[in-house]
Amino acid sequence: MVDEIRWIARIAPVNDASLGLFDSGVGGLTVVRAVQDLLPGEDVIYLGDTARLPYGSKSPETIRQFAAEDVDFLLGKGVKAIVVACNTATAHALPEFWKNCPVPIMGVIEPGVEAALANPDADRIGIIATRGTIGSHAYQHELATRKRGLMIHGIATPLLVPLIEENWIYEDVTKEILRKYLEPLMAKGIDTLMLACTHYPLLIPLLTEILPPDVRLVDSATTCAEHLKKMLEEKDLLSGKTGEGKLEIYLTDLSEQFEELAKRFLRRPTGKVRRAVLTAG
Amino acid sequence: MVDEIRWIARIAPVNDASLGLFDSGVGGLTVVRAVQDLLPGEDVIYLGDTARLPYGSKSPETIRQFAAEDVDFLLGKGVKAIVVACNTATAHALPEFWKNCPVPIMGVIEPGVEAALANPDADRIGIIATRGTIGSHAYQHELATRKRGLMIHGIATPLLVPLIEENWIYEDVTKEILRKYLEPLMAKGIDTLMLACTHYPLLIPLLTEILPPDVRLVDSATTCAEHLKKMLEEKDLLSGKTGEGKLEIYLTDLSEQFEELAKRFLRRPTGKVRRAVLTAG
Repeated sequence: MVDEIRWIARIAPVNDASLGLFDSGVGGLTVVRAVQDLLPGEDVIYLGDTARLPYGSKSPETIRQFAAEDVDFLLGKGVKAIVVACNTATAHALPEFWKNCPVPIMGVIEPGVEAALANPDADRIGIIATRGTIGSHAYQHELATRKRGLMIHGIATPLLVPLIEENWIYEDVTKEILRKYLEPLMAKGIDTLMLACTHYPLLIPLLTEILPPDVRLVDSATTCAEHLKKMLEEKDLLSGKTGEGKLEIYLTDLSEQFEELAKRFLRRPTGKVRRAVLTAG
Repeated sequence: MVDEIRWIARIAPVNDASLGLFDSGVGGLTVVRAVQDLLPGEDVIYLGDTARLPYGSKSPETIRQFAAEDVDFLLGKGVKAIVVACNTATAHALPEFWKNCPVPIMGVIEPGVEAALANPDADRIGIIATRGTIGSHAYQHELATRKRGLMIHGIATPLLVPLIEENWIYEDVTKEILRKYLEPLMAKGIDTLMLACTHYPLLIPLLTEILPPDVRLVDSATTCAEHLKKMLEEKDLLSGKTGEGKLEIYLTDLSEQFEELAKRFLRRPTGKVRRAVLTAG
């Protein structure tokens, strides 16, 4: 299937095909929302690997294997371009995809770093993310290659995804856990805090309460949509369709809880959510 | 492979074969420890499906599929009996295994319920567990069929596994989260609290601080080992070996964090941990 699609993609850019986005769960729907806002005519296919989430606590090898299966699923749906809407998968698998994926593919890290450095005063940068993303040093590396002399400090915050999935986003204990996690970053005097996980935007209200007002919060969903638009323009892959694009959501595990969460991340109706069956690579 | 093993198992009970235990992660090693203490001569093969953990937040259908693949892996290793050392998998998949598994198989729920009801004064029973276990009503059902007039109150406590895996087992925020979770159980005046997840024994020190001294904590690892011994005796499957049995640990995802956690759950050296590759069912 992959080979067949690869071949088709090489001979004919299919502008009216869908965009494919994937994440380990439903967090990547924050990116889908930004894409729908910026490119309303595009059809979008979203895959959330809810049966195997989270990716962030698992090993690089396993993350790469899962991400490859996610990409194969989207290629099987005939997508014209792919966004790895998952920080952990971007950190560990994107370079490999650049070499082998038959359609243009991008991740969330480059847009995130660009958003952070858009402010020329950004000098002392804190990053919060899953253990997998922090451990990959992908953000740290991307930041360091773009601006000399940055102070970069990354912290793994593995409890935040479970807290968000539990919907404890306004609870005092969540605030306390955030304070505990952020303490070493505050001590370093950061001026920018990067939310390097697609789940974290839901914690912005609480983070705003905790952080000093001069610390800038960077959420990459909007920059990511802008990057995607630029990539599609360059490859001549923008849809010619007018009207509102369709959204198809596939999850590898369906449950009421995930459907509920999906609505919260997308902030609009999800339509019918389907079950995806992936093929082991 | 399954059919072949089924056939061998039917014609010859292989007493010196290994026992197989599995869990979604490394929590089930608390059961392994109890089995090693009670049946020191037995060889044990343990499988932790760390690549897809947690099971507790996923749908019954997905849990059953994963558990079936775990059982197939152990059967492929030629085990003589299986313990589903995972509450969520026991709750959703055990009845199916009773019908189809070629070797004797047991779960953790029956031993847990037996341990809870061993005290004749147990009347008001609280259960804490994953969303999957609570939602299955397996504990509630098993308790209710064994003793009339029980007051049973189950609460899903999905943050506890991530907190334990983060090793925040003595932190104030964990105490606060436990208090928040336990509040409705305290209000109901429970006399017994069942720890219906193999991870939770690591929270016993904190729970002892929080709970009134007259609330009895029930952890099923020891009762589970006793059940296993009884089952092996009945089926004439006890090992004839003397000396210390071997332990082989397989995880579907290997990482330093899981190996570290495994040691904490087992409370002894784990030996070499190997990577398991499961076959999709």
